[in-house]
Amino acid sequence: MTTTMPPNPGTQGLLPPADPRLHLTSPTTTTVLRIQQRMLAAAREYLTGAGFAEMLPPIIGPVTDPGIRGSKQVEVDYYGHKYKLMTSAILYKQASLLAFDKIFCIAPNVRLEPLETASTSRHLAEFHQIDVEMAGASREQITQVLEELVRHIVRRVVTESPAEFEQLGRDTSAFTALLTQAFGHRTHAQAVAELRELGHPQSEDAEIDWTGEALLSGRSPQPFFITDYPKGSRGFYDRESATEPGVLRNFDLLAPDGYGELCSGSEREFDYTRIVTRMRETGENPAKYGWYLQLVREGIPASAGFGIGVERFTRYLAGLDSAWQANAFPKLPGVVSP
Amino acid sequence: MTTTMPPNPGTQGLLPPADPRLHLTSPTTTTVLRIQQRMLAAAREYLTGAGFAEMLPPIIGPVTDPGIRGSKQVEVDYYGHKYKLMTSAILYKQASLLAFDKIFCIAPNVRLEPLETASTSRHLAEFHQIDVEMAGASREQITQVLEELVRHIVRRVVTESPAEFEQLGRDTSAFTALLTQAFGHRTHAQAVAELRELGHPQSEDAEIDWTGEALLSGRSPQPFFITDYPKGSRGFYDRESATEPGVLRNFDLLAPDGYGELCSGSEREFDYTRIVTRMRETGENPAKYGWYLQLVREGIPASAGFGIGVERFTRYLAGLDSAWQANAFPKLPGVVSP
Repeated sequence: MTTTMPPNPGTQGLLPPADPRLHLTSPTTTTVLRIQQRMLAAAREYLTGAGFAEMLPPIIGPVTDPGIRGSKQVEVDYYGHKYKLMTSAILYKQASLLAFDKIFCIAPNVRLEPLETASTSRHLAEFHQIDVEMAGASREQITQVLEELVRHIVRRVVTESPAEFEQLGRDTSAFTALLTQAFGHRTHAQAVAELRELGHPQSEDAEIDWTGEALLSGRSPQPFFITDYPKGSRGFYDRESATEPGVLRNFDLLAPDGYGELCSGSEREFDYTRIVTRMRETGENPAKYGWYLQLVREGIPASAGFGIGVERFTRYLAGLDSAWQANAFPKLPGVVSP
Repeated sequence: MTTTMPPNPGTQGLLPPADPRLHLTSPTTTTVLRIQQRMLAAAREYLTGAGFAEMLPPIIGPVTDPGIRGSKQVEVDYYGHKYKLMTSAILYKQASLLAFDKIFCIAPNVRLEPLETASTSRHLAEFHQIDVEMAGASREQITQVLEELVRHIVRRVVTESPAEFEQLGRDTSAFTALLTQAFGHRTHAQAVAELRELGHPQSEDAEIDWTGEALLSGRSPQPFFITDYPKGSRGFYDRESATEPGVLRNFDLLAPDGYGELCSGSEREFDYTRIVTRMRETGENPAKYGWYLQLVREGIPASAGFGIGVERFTRYLAGLDSAWQANAFPKLPGVVSP
């Protein structure tokens, strides 16, 4: 097998055309959206076949995911009450497990990312996630679901869309490792050590930064997990290890060839006292989380789950410079557009 | 064929339990959601098979559908710009036809309905629509798509969910007329005359009011269209008849047995001058519609389309008292809930 040269995607940092007509009528756009439509159909096929029930989560609520890496929440006035736009479905995913043991949703999220992220090629203020949650699952079980789901989607789309890949100039041999070999695994500590050896000053107490992710992703011919992030780097709902205090039972999935993060997930915290403690540690006021903490106090299932960024995954599959190319009406941080 | 007695649905006007656990763990809820999941899978199956491309429309934007019958829009602050939550996907549906000739989306909408609608059994402040739009279609063509879509969904769900209907006590012979006979048709003028004969003082210049809809729906054993609403009753995007000024080329689809409106649709206005005139007639400021009017001025396809209320359709199929029973996290107008 020959390894495709990393295309070093995203370095152009192009912005969408100011005229939405140019984007909507571009043959690239329609081709990319056809690939995305097949991706989502394949995701539904796999997940429904595996017994996951599809939910329609709310897009506004009294509270939403606070663990969103430097971005801000959008507030709305709901009959005089301060509500938020969903930054992720996490709270509703945990709650939905009271109805079904295995659930998923494909839903929009809105995050006010910093203005300087408009040209990173990977940030959209409005985007979609394939969100999955499974009662009673361990990290090992949920990453297996994720790995099978990703492989199913890629296999389907590669099979059904040869003309689209041809048109985009995307060589599908880039997916050979993904389709035939187990995904890679490294811990956060291993990733930090690797980056330092490469001369990149990655903090051991924080998220792998964008440069670090790009470095690791660019050196890998296949998708790989980074596990065991330090506690301070993620939201209160990522469960802390019982045996390694300060280490979370979570993971990211990174695409190869420089495309970077596709997905984040974790075993979830479900114990009322530990959740309240974690909220306080992360600067969240538990009083804001009324309905959620009421459910948690009376008991929610242990679970694990993940969220795949639809536009980022599409970018990787279609071999695009930027995530906005995978959205019909892209919203770049701070830019007024449809 | 025996006609099922109208169940007079919704007269109880019950509210959801204040504790979301009670709703999420109710066997009725999980059964209803399973029916809804099959409905949406059947909708995707039919529409994708008929060549419609599924879009992921935005949930916030500078402007949204103003023609929303007594409800208000939710404002959000997007990087200092005043944006709105989507009340419907209409503007994005018309724009999406620049990319694909036939599109659909299944998307959330938020409308601040008046507080007094919290107990009507049919209003949710947050709900979902199956939205369809077809370039070049006439009203006759799009209502045929709608009729076939509804029949496909009902046939699928009835076939796949006998245990669920049994559990809900829903006699599926209620769908015999729907599955075997063409849907009914009456014009708005005919509906007004019929209601006046029944002693209901329906205005000829306005929407059929809720009581009027319930009266007509309760007298019908099968779904029926009401067409040709008067101009003042709908948004600027419903096209006015070229031969009958003041009459719109639009339609509602009403469920039988008192369940009322399931869907609204229309041929669309696409001419720049006429759209601006209609905006002014309906009290809308064209200056707010920047990106949309820019596209319209340079040309968008003629089209027709419709939006089916997912929770209302589920209510009818499952034979529920209230639309909120068809949503895992229901938001009643004015009520604080997850």
